[in-house]
Amino acid sequence: MTPVSPLALPLPALPPLAGVRLATAAAGIRYQGRTDLLLAAFAEGTTVAGVFTRNVCPGAPVTYCREILPGGTARGLLVNAGNANVFNGVSGIRAVEATAAATAAALGVPAESIFLASTGVIGEPLPAEKIVAAMDRLNGDLGDDRFADAARAIMTTDTFPKAATRTARLGGVDVRVTGIAKGSGMIAPDMATMLAFLFTDAAIPAPALQAMLGKGVDHSFNCITIDSDTSTSDTVLLFATGAAGNKPTEDPAALADFRRALSEVLHDLAMMVVRDGEGAQKLVKITVDGAVSNASARRVGLAIANSPLVKTAIAGEDANWGRIVMAVGKAGEPADRDRLAIAVGGTWMAKSGGVVPGYNEAPVVAHMKGREIEIDVDIGLGTGRATVWTCDLTHGYIDINGSYRS
Amino acid sequence: MTPVSPLALPLPALPPLAGVRLATAAAGIRYQGRTDLLLAAFAEGTTVAGVFTRNVCPGAPVTYCREILPGGTARGLLVNAGNANVFNGVSGIRAVEATAAATAAALGVPAESIFLASTGVIGEPLPAEKIVAAMDRLNGDLGDDRFADAARAIMTTDTFPKAATRTARLGGVDVRVTGIAKGSGMIAPDMATMLAFLFTDAAIPAPALQAMLGKGVDHSFNCITIDSDTSTSDTVLLFATGAAGNKPTEDPAALADFRRALSEVLHDLAMMVVRDGEGAQKLVKITVDGAVSNASARRVGLAIANSPLVKTAIAGEDANWGRIVMAVGKAGEPADRDRLAIAVGGTWMAKSGGVVPGYNEAPVVAHMKGREIEIDVDIGLGTGRATVWTCDLTHGYIDINGSYRS
Repeated sequence: MTPVSPLALPLPALPPLAGVRLATAAAGIRYQGRTDLLLAAFAEGTTVAGVFTRNVCPGAPVTYCREILPGGTARGLLVNAGNANVFNGVSGIRAVEATAAATAAALGVPAESIFLASTGVIGEPLPAEKIVAAMDRLNGDLGDDRFADAARAIMTTDTFPKAATRTARLGGVDVRVTGIAKGSGMIAPDMATMLAFLFTDAAIPAPALQAMLGKGVDHSFNCITIDSDTSTSDTVLLFATGAAGNKPTEDPAALADFRRALSEVLHDLAMMVVRDGEGAQKLVKITVDGAVSNASARRVGLAIANSPLVKTAIAGEDANWGRIVMAVGKAGEPADRDRLAIAVGGTWMAKSGGVVPGYNEAPVVAHMKGREIEIDVDIGLGTGRATVWTCDLTHGYIDINGSYRS
Repeated sequence: MTPVSPLALPLPALPPLAGVRLATAAAGIRYQGRTDLLLAAFAEGTTVAGVFTRNVCPGAPVTYCREILPGGTARGLLVNAGNANVFNGVSGIRAVEATAAATAAALGVPAESIFLASTGVIGEPLPAEKIVAAMDRLNGDLGDDRFADAARAIMTTDTFPKAATRTARLGGVDVRVTGIAKGSGMIAPDMATMLAFLFTDAAIPAPALQAMLGKGVDHSFNCITIDSDTSTSDTVLLFATGAAGNKPTEDPAALADFRRALSEVLHDLAMMVVRDGEGAQKLVKITVDGAVSNASARRVGLAIANSPLVKTAIAGEDANWGRIVMAVGKAGEPADRDRLAIAVGGTWMAKSGGVVPGYNEAPVVAHMKGREIEIDVDIGLGTGRATVWTCDLTHGYIDINGSYRS
């Protein structure tokens, strides 16, 4: 058993959400003695938005969700942990069809309103029959206070369950957004989590929901990286049941507070994924300023965040800014060695192409011993800015990934 | 002390090369009790070619060499280990000027005929005075049978010295190419070694030398990666003394055998760098076929070679081809999940989007326990082909890089 990440956060209180019922079950797909299936049933009229991995070898569930997403409505979600149903050829497609059909039949809704996600090992046939066999039990167990159970059922190498919730005002009504996520390794843009599911009781048409989710993911999951590896299964889905009773709106001004709540939930979930990065001992926030554009700043930030030499230095509590210089220089983005400045923990160590004269290492050494590390880089060329998050690279990562299947 | 890599190769016999004299010294730049300086003196008329890092934050010696390379001639080479003279601002430039001037004075040649390279820690001032103080000793020690000593003097985190040599026929004369290299971490295209120096007694004009070196590096050092990090100091220099007495030629046909010898030396040195990858326990050869172009095949190969999840699986002796599928899919290159095929150790495990029916894991399991791992990927889209090399990612890498400066 991998110990719980030292960066773990406790689950918040997760109140029921009108229009969402949940159930979990232990189907023994791969894991024993724990839940590995999540069923969510949504009220009639629920709208849906989704963002998926850009990996060109996606899993069968991702291909399936992409096909039904344009319908814009959802009545159910079925998620399994332990098997990703990726690279299973025709048998993978059949497993998708069989599980979607069984879920639709149990809920009494059309198959094309059932969203699916699978996470776990790649290239092993998904035992759809175990999922189908658990369907009646799941359906009978549906209840409205199961978010914590849901967050646990979708975990794979995660060491703690991940959830976040916020309220917002929308059209004179209080609405809520609640999200759960799983992800620990194979985390890099795009997208940076394997699975995240968000639920709201707000009534929001699917196109507006999709626009807000896309933007929110871009500023959260697409700004984190653990190991530069992009999963074949990454899926973020947002379901809006409309049960709160607000008048559906697509007006950006009216949706401002909802957008804020959604962004905060996405940000919280993304941070939890980094905090559970495989082997992570430190959470690292990298802010790049002065780049030629925001996109350039993000690419420089990710080059630093993905550099094994930077990440191992942080693991060793060594403020090795030379490796940060190296990573800036390898990013393929405009940079000028002689304008570059680097700070760790707020102390500027290097400026104008060299070490800061009289630089005092003591506060930096102290900062590096902490759990949360801050790196600031000023490229000195423009006004582009981005923040990305990662974790350190430790023996724990090797332990977990050198023996995942055994 | 890091133990010698289990993939190490012994130094070959390295005969003297007419027109090249070498000396090494222990200047105490960073290391104690070992040599850390290499001086090479070249016969009059020596031509030179060079290829340098594409990192946009290069070290001062790289900037300097780029400036003098167009002259096309060289009389000396000075290399130090332990300090890379990178990101030292004006003091870095002064250190370059001082050491070039001292070398030129000792050898009685123009300063702009002295090439320089530095390797080691970034961002600490290079103690030029220690190098200058060692110059008379170095100059007095110059001899023609010092290639093994030279290979040792340029090491940093390397666990074994690296050298290769070949002979060729050129214009009816026997000529020889000998190279030394150092590099162990921060190894990725472009370029993939920190430092490599090649010497030949052939007479070849600088433009032809440059063309052959550029192409040779592209097929050797630019096809290896250890950790995806690109050094700020990568330098490959090739010096041709002309002392073998062949008639200088730029004719590609006449140079064919020399090109073959040069390519072999470059390939051997690149393989030694991978074999000394920090923490490496296994040498990994990845051949990608069926891509839309050779360049695309190389990018897919490097995505696999740089994937921490693939590399840790290999360290764990796990033929986890699902992670290879993931890496192919994240490469950003054309690929079709349903045409992809993957073999390990010559056994095709996955074809046409799924596991091979009746696939027998036994020979693959046996292959994964070996020191040399072969991965073949067929993209199934075209005729593009490339081979890249890397090593596994182990606890040793974390050990070495989590405490490099301490």
